[in-house]
Amino acid sequence: MKRYEKLVHDIATAIRSGVLAPGEKLPSVRQACLNHKLSPATVFRAYYELENLGLIRAQPKSGYYVSNHAIKQLASKTTPVPEQASTVVSISDMVFSILSSIKDPETVPLGSAFPWPDLFPLARLSRSLAHATRDMGPAAIVESLPPGNHDLRRQIARRYLMQGVEADVDNILITNGAFEALNLCLEAVTQPGDLVAIESPTFHGCLQALERLQLKAVEIPVDPVLGMDLDYLESVLEKCPVRACWSMTSFQNPMGVSMPAERKQVLVELLTRYRIPLIEDDVYGELYFGMQEHRPAKAYDSEGYVMHCSSFSKTLAPGYRIGWALLPKRFERKVERLKVITSLSTSTIAQAAIADFLQHGGYDRHLRRLRTKFELQQHQYLHLIARYFPAETQVTRPHGGYFLWVDLPERVDALVLFQRALEQGVSVAPGPIFSARHQCCNCIRINYSKPVDAEVEQAFKTLGRLMSSIEAAAPGH
Amino acid sequence: MKRYEKLVHDIATAIRSGVLAPGEKLPSVRQACLNHKLSPATVFRAYYELENLGLIRAQPKSGYYVSNHAIKQLASKTTPVPEQASTVVSISDMVFSILSSIKDPETVPLGSAFPWPDLFPLARLSRSLAHATRDMGPAAIVESLPPGNHDLRRQIARRYLMQGVEADVDNILITNGAFEALNLCLEAVTQPGDLVAIESPTFHGCLQALERLQLKAVEIPVDPVLGMDLDYLESVLEKCPVRACWSMTSFQNPMGVSMPAERKQVLVELLTRYRIPLIEDDVYGELYFGMQEHRPAKAYDSEGYVMHCSSFSKTLAPGYRIGWALLPKRFERKVERLKVITSLSTSTIAQAAIADFLQHGGYDRHLRRLRTKFELQQHQYLHLIARYFPAETQVTRPHGGYFLWVDLPERVDALVLFQRALEQGVSVAPGPIFSARHQCCNCIRINYSKPVDAEVEQAFKTLGRLMSSIEAAAPGH
Repeated sequence: MKRYEKLVHDIATAIRSGVLAPGEKLPSVRQACLNHKLSPATVFRAYYELENLGLIRAQPKSGYYVSNHAIKQLASKTTPVPEQASTVVSISDMVFSILSSIKDPETVPLGSAFPWPDLFPLARLSRSLAHATRDMGPAAIVESLPPGNHDLRRQIARRYLMQGVEADVDNILITNGAFEALNLCLEAVTQPGDLVAIESPTFHGCLQALERLQLKAVEIPVDPVLGMDLDYLESVLEKCPVRACWSMTSFQNPMGVSMPAERKQVLVELLTRYRIPLIEDDVYGELYFGMQEHRPAKAYDSEGYVMHCSSFSKTLAPGYRIGWALLPKRFERKVERLKVITSLSTSTIAQAAIADFLQHGGYDRHLRRLRTKFELQQHQYLHLIARYFPAETQVTRPHGGYFLWVDLPERVDALVLFQRALEQGVSVAPGPIFSARHQCCNCIRINYSKPVDAEVEQAFKTLGRLMSSIEAAAPGH
Repeated sequence: MKRYEKLVHDIATAIRSGVLAPGEKLPSVRQACLNHKLSPATVFRAYYELENLGLIRAQPKSGYYVSNHAIKQLASKTTPVPEQASTVVSISDMVFSILSSIKDPETVPLGSAFPWPDLFPLARLSRSLAHATRDMGPAAIVESLPPGNHDLRRQIARRYLMQGVEADVDNILITNGAFEALNLCLEAVTQPGDLVAIESPTFHGCLQALERLQLKAVEIPVDPVLGMDLDYLESVLEKCPVRACWSMTSFQNPMGVSMPAERKQVLVELLTRYRIPLIEDDVYGELYFGMQEHRPAKAYDSEGYVMHCSSFSKTLAPGYRIGWALLPKRFERKVERLKVITSLSTSTIAQAAIADFLQHGGYDRHLRRLRTKFELQQHQYLHLIARYFPAETQVTRPHGGYFLWVDLPERVDALVLFQRALEQGVSVAPGPIFSARHQCCNCIRINYSKPVDAEVEQAFKTLGRLMSSIEAAAPGH
């Protein structure tokens, strides 16, 4: 990170965390030079960037102030009592219409779940691919059968160890992306009709997996700051024969929230007490902002009840479809066999290419760059929301990942917005697709991985205009 | 094919089909030169090869004769009446122990289902991979989402058209190998508890798929010459609420048999009458011997009840995990959505590499070479069986693929043989893994894709020796 970037980062963090309040005056350029031992040019550049990010504004002849049009952060809230204990899951056509809209290059993909593909080292990956396949003998085919390429599993195990998570090469199963891993884990521990505790709102893929396996969902509310409501979960476990719990513990999709470390630990202890497997979806865990890495709940799994699933699809190589599960001994064989009888093996060449990149490609350097980009872009997108969305809008402030969860005024029906926006060439992900009971009717998820340009700005203008017209059209207004 | 190879092929085919009977005298070299307009050197070389293949023998000062130690061909037989109408499927650990034995490079993989990997153009594929990924933009990730890479689907559709099978690019869904395609198709048309008509013996992956989806099997006997018993199938359809039929119509695994074209047509008509979808597993269809290509049952599907599944795993690129399903309109959406919610997408790079190879790599040339190799190796393996296995042994004579189905004397328990052979470093696939009711107790499947060498010859010696000892140990002998 360059010096001015560091200053941008520090001040942005202070603003986001509330240390610097809206309207507050920033140190003068002269003062900042002294404080940080920087040249005036560096401070000017940082302030200029912060202005561009919409976080501060210059007041002529007076100085720099924290913007006071900053959008309201979605706060912790008391948990609403759900109407019913469990729900037969049925997901509508919306998810698929979003997916097909993503394929249209004319549509601005704010509703996409995929990271913007230009952010990834595709050329460097191609070199890893060439390097890995050049040396690949015919035996590689057999060696790539489940549990998968040994080098790749070794590299993944090494990363776990660096995070302080115990991981044996033999406990790692390579899969076609994390999604296959999650599906296999869920299938391994359930029977049709079983009850599964999931988050609400949750990743729609989780709802689809439950639907496919004919499982019933118990929705556990997710607090925008603290993550899954553990008291509520405990009360459910006391009453209901829950067979598994599926949770995205870090930078949860769609809300972006991470459970604080001590809550992850409580979650694991709670489930362990009831001997309920935790299927931990951790595909965004590596995309934390700042220096403090996010350990998964798996780190607290002393008894072997956590199946930790992740991938390289959000962090390095979308399209390669390389994911994995780190499995406790008790589930290992079952999950591995399910993998074999579902899709047999994961692409030999993709496995080898990722293994090569992890060894030689500079994955950590790439990740650091990606995290900085996402953090800066989050500020830019918050700024666009503040500028174009209705005043009552509230937004989460994730410390990682690339999703914002936007709570719109109640009169804005997210499904109507979704439809009209799509007609205008903008996709958003409407709240109801993240809920088994189609709740979150006035929420949308925004993907901020696409760098801000005129097209993105125009998309936000369009969304703002549509929201006004929907509000105006609502009965009683 | 070189001239001498053509002559080898012609005579071998005549011997295999019975046109030239065991003990019969071949034309003299001089006569053959005149008949075929070939030089004596060419005829000598062909006869020499045929001798090496064990198909003919030279009798000093007399001439060449068709070997009379040729093994007995497994003949058509009357269908045994199954004991029960349907079976809850449960597959033992054997399948997985065979799979893990394949990973051991010290074990001769006669029990493997994979083609011997040295037979594939791995270096040329690597070049296609490099070529395809060099030009690959970030948009490729989104373009590879289901139904999959458009160029690849276009190439596949083109091959269908050349075979006389109607196929639209939009009806092709790319999958992680044919096995994923088959699983998705089966899942799309069934509910737990449903009845599915399958072949007996059948590919063990079919049994595993039924087991996973909690489906019940009605086993339809497969005749070693004619394929699935269609009268029996019809009597089952009259009585039972069958929901789907899974069949490998060409070079069936494990028996190697192909249904004659007119029977494929009858099969499709029969199922169409009952509106039962046919899940056609056609992964070996391209591996026919001779010039006459094998059209799939899909070619006769005028009403849209056949889901045709295939892949490049047996013919071009094992390990790349690229398969597909050609779907009738009525099933298309359901299967595509299941793909999305099971594993999302198929590896972008693998799809692009195969598309490139199909366009520039000389796939048909490679296939012709592969077919010739497999046909010659089949003769060699038949010779080894004739030499080392008990005299009562009967074997199928497939006209394609790389499996022989070996019917051993009744006293030889295939499971005992399997265990003992594995201890001696030889794997075979025992009959019971191909049957829901663990029948075929004295049958084994032999993979003949590995070129014959000292190791293979030794493996057959070992198997022969083990069979004698099992026979000797059997009660009453």
